[in-house]
Parts: sequence; C-alpha cells; structure tokens
Amino acid sequence: MVVDSEPRVLKHQIVRRSLDAMLDGMSAGDAFPSERDLAERYDVSRETLRQAIRELLVAGRIERRGRATVVAEPKVVLPLAIGSYTEAAREKGMSATRILVGWDVFRADDVLADLLGVETGSEVVQLERVFTTGDVRVGLETTRIPAYRIPGLQSSFDHRSSLYAELAARGVTFGRVVDTIETVLPDAREAALLTVDTRTPMFLLGRVSYDTDGVPIEHRRSLYRGDRMTFTAVMNA
Amino acid sequence: MVVDSEPRVLKHQIVRRSLDAMLDGMSAGDAFPSERDLAERYDVSRETLRQAIRELLVAGRIERRGRATVVAEPKVVLPLAIGSYTEAAREKGMSATRILVGWDVFRADDVLADLLGVETGSEVVQLERVFTTGDVRVGLETTRIPAYRIPGLQSSFDHRSSLYAELAARGVTFGRVVDTIETVLPDAREAALLTVDTRTPMFLLGRVSYDTDGVPIEHRRSLYRGDRMTFTAVMNA
Repeated sequence: MVVDSEPRVLKHQIVRRSLDAMLDGMSAGDAFPSERDLAERYDVSRETLRQAIRELLVAGRIERRGRATVVAEPKVVLPLAIGSYTEAAREKGMSATRILVGWDVFRADDVLADLLGVETGSEVVQLERVFTTGDVRVGLETTRIPAYRIPGLQSSFDHRSSLYAELAARGVTFGRVVDTIETVLPDAREAALLTVDTRTPMFLLGRVSYDTDGVPIEHRRSLYRGDRMTFTAVMNA
Repeated sequence: MVVDSEPRVLKHQIVRRSLDAMLDGMSAGDAFPSERDLAERYDVSRETLRQAIRELLVAGRIERRGRATVVAEPKVVLPLAIGSYTEAAREKGMSATRILVGWDVFRADDVLADLLGVETGSEVVQLERVFTTGDVRVGLETTRIPAYRIPGLQSSFDHRSSLYAELAARGVTFGRVVDTIETVLPDAREAALLTVDTRTPMFLLGRVSYDTDGVPIEHRRSLYRGDRMTFTAVMNA
C-alpha cells in the first residue's frame, strides 16, 4: 500500500514541523511567540507544545535570553578533522577565539603517563580553554601535553590562538589522531563555563594525537555544546 | 609552579573517580551499592553522590533494573564507518540484530525528493528498525530508499539482516556517505522503543549515501543511545 504522506507522526512532531517552517522564515534574534499564542494557533495542549519547544531548545533553533525566547543563530557545522577547530571555523568565515580558563603544570599519574608515552611523574602542561564562535561559548577543551614538547610555551604562546599552529611552528608534525565521540551531560562547573543548563546534551570528544613517528603529542578532552555544534564526516569507499 | 596532582577537581569528581575505580573491579550485572552506603563510605552528602551517580548512568557504567542498580555491560564501541553497524558489531564478536518497527511505502515530498534525487511524488520505501547488540536496544534507524532501487524487497529481504548487504547483492555500490552528527534528547516514542528515559542524551546521525556515480541511494536517520554507544574516528594526516 502506498500512502500519500509518511506514517506514524505524533502530534508534537506535527507542531514541531510547523514551528520549524515558521522559524525558517525568521531571523536570529527575533522574538519567538509565547507558548499561549502558539497553543491557540495550532489548537494543541500546552503540554504538546512544551515538548516541541524543548526539542527546539535542545536542537539550538531557539534560545532563552533571560525571560524571553528568541530565534537562535544557526548551529556551527564543522567537519571532524585532525586539525584545529579555531582555524576550521575561521576558514568558514566565522569569528572564533579561545578564552583561557586554566594553565597548569602537574606530574602525570600512571594512566596519563601511559596515554602520553612518558614516565610516571613527568611534567605535563594542561591548558583549559573555552572555544567561542561569534560571541557564543560553544566548547571547553582541556589539552595535556608533555612539557618536553613545549619548553617556554608560557612566554611565547598567545592562548587565544591555535595550539596546533604553535606546535607546527615548533616542528611537531601530526601524523594521526584517534578520537572517541560520546554524548554526556555537563556537570555544574562545565554548564556554568558554557552558559547552558545541566540538562543540555553535550559532545565529549576524547583525542590522542600522534606525531609522524607514532609518539603521542597530546591528550585532549573536548566538551562541545550539542545545541550549538554539529559535526560532519564524509567517507569515501 | 609544578603541583603533584591535577588542579580544580570538584568533590563529586573525586567521588566519581573512586566509583569508577570500584566499578573497574566489578562485573556486569553485579549489584551497585546503595546511595546511603556510598555516602557513608566516602563521607559526602547525598547530593554530591547523586551527581556522580547520575553521571555514571548517563555514561552507561551502571543501569537501573526496576528498583535495583547494577553494573552495566561495557559500551558498544564502533568506528564511524561507511558500512553496516550490524556487520561491524558482529565482526567485533558481538551478537547484533534488528527488530522491525515499521515498513512503509509513501510518496516523497519536495524536501525528501531533493535529498534522494528523485521526482516529487516518487515512491519511497521506509524501513524503521531497532538495532540491538546482546539483548540491549541501542539504536533506532529509519532508512528511506527510492522504490526503484529495491523492487520486490518485501518478499526477499530478511529484515534482521544488513540492508547494505542486500543492496550490495543487488549490485548497488556505495561510493560516498555524508554524515552529520548531532546530540539530542529522544521524544516519548523513541524513548519507549529504546527503553531509556527522555533525559538520556542520544546521538542523531543523519546520512545520505551515494553510489559510485554520485546518485543518492538512501537517506538515513539513526538515533543511538548515548549511554550505550561510543563512536571512534581515526584520521591520518
């Protein structure tokens, strides 16, 4: 049997689609209509509408600004890549920078030493930075690099710029990266740093990068806002 | 300044690490201690403990079974790949199958027709299947294929098996896939089909696959449980 439209569509999905179509015709920053107005317009319950609105918030189509709800900027779409997301965003014409949250030196425990291919107790430099595009805080990246790789970094490095570019300038050549991609909820500190609530799904990217000799360069833990970031991957057979 | 341990660790993170270490020594299915016992053991508030436990649930290290909480099976780790996740899981020695949820034929609207490179109104076959590994429902995959690609599918195809293998057997060769990766919350129906609550972060993979002539083969929308799946990506320079 061929039917004229697709099957099994829930009421809130129909509302969601109408809202998506409405949003397509609006601009970032425009006021989103009130829940009451929308419930009347679509003749649905407030509960049905709330489900659709919650989805639009998580999908990053609308956002709260204080007590108001407005149309959000489009999500940042970046390819999963070996290189710097700052540079990838800039190449797409977006402004992108980093805000320094922490810069520390500590001694590697067994687990970290094993990941980084150094002796337990070796010095490791940890940079924690918030990644922004436009004026939006989209990610929190924690990078750990064996100190021997980056002598004098603190006096030479502009922490708003790409660490990958800095490493390249020091003659470190990336050969391979291994990413794991998970989805998690942020804890209270992470939520505050990224200006989200703790119910917002996040991407958690864990990365170990290796140089062309197969020696680890860095361990990186990156938390990206699910309501602000989409990753793409193109694979050829 | 070099300090002996890493900086800025919150109380619930310390508890979380102790619990992770404890879980490393336990087996899937073992009973997880009660909240009260753990609060006493680590001398922390119930609130601090709840945050750590919520993280362990979302991370898929423990799971609820009725009123009990038990150690979960390890997450399913699969590489982001052009091919079938059923086959990828089986190659890793996991049992994997599909449960048919819906099999429909409908006419493509403008948007879908454009994605699939067919005329508006063309027949499209939609298969909706739950992807399981072990006995766990880990994903919900909705595949839409132009009907001309798969004449007679309904009488020949074992819906528990790989659709990619079926397409290959029909002489369709995959050339390129384009994935977008987002993270979302499931709606009520999706949560019920995947036996999670609606606060569990999910991966949403959108895919368009093309044959070696660049003609679209399928549009796929896959929802994978964030507490049960980790994706990996290895990239070479």
